[in-house]
Formats: sequence, structure tokens, C-alpha cells
Amino acid sequence: MTETLLSDKNPLLKDVRKAAPLTSEGFALAEGPHLLEEALRSGADIGPILATVAAVLPPGAKRVIRVADATFASLATTDSPQGVLSLVRPRAWTFDQLLHGRALVVILDGIQDPGNAGAILRAAEAFGATGAVFLKGCVSPHNPKCMRASAGSIFRIPYVAGLTAEELLDVCRLPLHAADAKATIVLAEARLAKPCAIIIGSEGRGVSPALAERATGLRIPTVKVESLNAAVAAGILLYEARRQRSAP
Amino acid sequence: MTETLLSDKNPLLKDVRKAAPLTSEGFALAEGPHLLEEALRSGADIGPILATVAAVLPPGAKRVIRVADATFASLATTDSPQGVLSLVRPRAWTFDQLLHGRALVVILDGIQDPGNAGAILRAAEAFGATGAVFLKGCVSPHNPKCMRASAGSIFRIPYVAGLTAEELLDVCRLPLHAADAKATIVLAEARLAKPCAIIIGSEGRGVSPALAERATGLRIPTVKVESLNAAVAAGILLYEARRQRSAP
Repeated sequence: MTETLLSDKNPLLKDVRKAAPLTSEGFALAEGPHLLEEALRSGADIGPILATVAAVLPPGAKRVIRVADATFASLATTDSPQGVLSLVRPRAWTFDQLLHGRALVVILDGIQDPGNAGAILRAAEAFGATGAVFLKGCVSPHNPKCMRASAGSIFRIPYVAGLTAEELLDVCRLPLHAADAKATIVLAEARLAKPCAIIIGSEGRGVSPALAERATGLRIPTVKVESLNAAVAAGILLYEARRQRSAP
Repeated sequence: MTETLLSDKNPLLKDVRKAAPLTSEGFALAEGPHLLEEALRSGADIGPILATVAAVLPPGAKRVIRVADATFASLATTDSPQGVLSLVRPRAWTFDQLLHGRALVVILDGIQDPGNAGAILRAAEAFGATGAVFLKGCVSPHNPKCMRASAGSIFRIPYVAGLTAEELLDVCRLPLHAADAKATIVLAEARLAKPCAIIIGSEGRGVSPALAERATGLRIPTVKVESLNAAVAAGILLYEARRQRSAP
């Protein structure tokens, strides 16, 4: 069904403008055909799709509202808008839902760059993590750029957000690991095959002291740069965990 | 030496505004205290540092010109400017200078996101790559965001830019490897300890056909996502190369 928006005062536009990171009803702003396709495929609760006249619609789109280019530009959060966006309500999870089978939980600690946070979610799903935690102080998982950078993983991997380090330690009984350039244990020698959690600290501040003192430090053996991009470091830790878990 | 800029018509301002990615004299725009510190430390040819009155200067700054906040804002390329920037002329390299010892060259093929390109340079340096190639069609290595994301690696690792795939094949005699989700060889079984080059394709289009047909495909063993973020994939390939080269 395709409608055309006739008034710039339509309340849906107001909701979209207030959506970052979430509307009062828990809807996030998902932009771009690829991300909307992933949202539709995941069965997430999805509002009408706002689209420019020229935009290509994602397959499976039900209700579509065509808007003027200028109206769309005022809603878009990207530098090069692709002409489609929608409000989407991601599923809500509890911490226990992050744990199943051989649990592998990724804990984002102070990650504020939305591109990095999204890339970490994507790597988490790619390497079979069972869930992710966005500690308080991280970017929101529903930041529009984080959702895009996740390439749809946001709609598939269980995650919780907003816990403090102390609240996490109350509920999380998994052994903790954290990348640490000064650690004596080299990543390849870490024990990541058993249920565990991996903490990804921010590049500036590193892992929170309350978590660092409970975690086993792992060193990624680099030649000379003291830190890697946070998403790159997360990808390498998750790759190594997966490698150990797949070993015969 | 600190001066104060009195005129908005100063020709230096015009140069800075035209700098992305390079001025006609080969200067790039480097912004932020951390990147400028790395530029100064590397001995790169660096112009006067333009700084707001409140800005903290990087150690080693020689000539500093204080500018009004509004002038600085008109020059800055970041969302949250930190008040210092300068024109910097990165060293120019030839392809042969990317090869020494057990060469490990990273080839960026169609990488257009400057944050990814910079993170790849950073990972390349971290894991001991001897050089990087930005093929034609990539973002410029001198894009201000790429330089920042490189965390200063742009001033230390040799790189060349602008070659076509055919030009690369003319000069590069190294065995080529490329991540390929459909490859039969799993990354951990690849032979990366000998001199070689690793091609990082773009997420949308993958590796250029002319290069893909000459390259050994390597599979990063993921669970279900068909592609990783390009910088994450690059980091994992480089980590594995380093692991093999460090093995006793």
C-alpha cells in the first residue's frame, strides 16, 4: 500500500525526528534499504516506510508513505540518504537471554563511536556470540549509525543496554576476558572455548577498573601500535574464540 | 612562537579550505591534538598550527597561529572540533619502498569509507605490514577522517595511492591473498608467513575481478553473516599473518 504524505505536520514526522535513539514507545530510526530489509526479514515491529518518490523500496515493504525530497532530507541521518527510512521497534531482551549453550557474551565498555559499536555487533553475530551488553556510558545500540553499521545484526543478536559495571557483575557469572596491551597471556593461549565474556574497552580509557580487576587480560600480539581500533580488536578476539570453539 | 590571526582573508585559510584531500603543494589537513602530535613526532613537513584560544597545543608545536572560534569552526572537518589543525605534507613513497624483509603489503580495493581505511592502516602498522596500497577508487589516504582514524599510522607506514589493478599487477610480484566467504581454504591454513600481499575488498563489491582471479581466496570462518566490516576483516587477516610469522 502506497500513500503520499500531504502535510508536513503529520505526527509521524514528529516521531521520526524524536526517534534518536528511541521514541517514547521504543521505536528506533532505521534508515536505508539494506537495514530496512533486515528489519522486515527479522519480523521486528515496523512502522510505515517513508520513501522519496525515486527511492527503491526494500522487498517485503507493506505500508509505504511517499514524501517530498526536502521532507525526507529533514528526517535523514545519513550524509548520502538513500530515500527510505522507518521507525522500527527492536525486540527487548533480558540478560538471561544472552546466555545459552556455550555462552559467548561481548561486553561493550565505554564504546561511544556508533560505527565501532555496530561493527562489533556485526562481528559478534558473525563469530557466534550469544549476546552483547552495552554498558552505561556506551553509545545507544539504537543510534541510527550503530544500527546501520551492524548491517542488521541489531535485529538478530540478543543484547541489553544501560547496565553499570557493578550491575553487570551482579548478574554475570561468566569468566571475563579483556584485551590488555600489557597482559602476559597472549590471545592465542587464552581459554575462550568455555562459556565466557569478552570485554571491549574504549580506545581512550580502556576497560573500567571494576571490570579490569575481575578479568583475565589478553594481549593481542602487535608489533608496535599500542592500541587497535576497538572494532578491529573485538573482531580479532571473537575470531580467536570461534577458532578455539571450532577446533576438533 | 604564537601569533594571532587578524584577517579572515589570510591565504593560509584558503589553503586549509582547499586541502581535502591535498593542496596543490601536497599538503593534507590534519586535525586534532593527537594526530598533530604524531605528525610532529614523525618529522613530517608541517605548516603553522591553527588553534583556538582555548585549545591545548600538541607537544613540540613550533609556529602557532591563534584564530577566532568561528574561523576555526569554518575550517574544521570534525563534528566535535578540538581546536587545533594544520597542513601537513606526508612523505611520498614508491611501490618498491613498500617491500623489505618479509614483505607484507595490504591492498585496499574499493574501500571508500575513510574510517575503515584509516583503521586498516592502523592495523597494518600494528601487525608489522611493510606497506599499503590504496587502489584507484578508494578514498584518498589523505582524507582528514582517514588520517584521524589511522591514529598517526599514516605518518609511519609506507603507502602508495591511485594505482589501477592492472598497474598493481605490473609492479607487484608478491603472492596475493584475498578474503572470500566462499573459499575452501580457511584462514588459519593459509600460508601467510612468506612475503605476500593481502587484498581487502569493499563490502559491497568485493575484490576486483582482475585481482580476484590472481589471488588465493581465504575464508574467515564465520557462523552466518556473509561479510564482516572491511576493517574488522583486514584486522583478522593481518592478525593471522602476524601469528604465523611469529610462530617458532
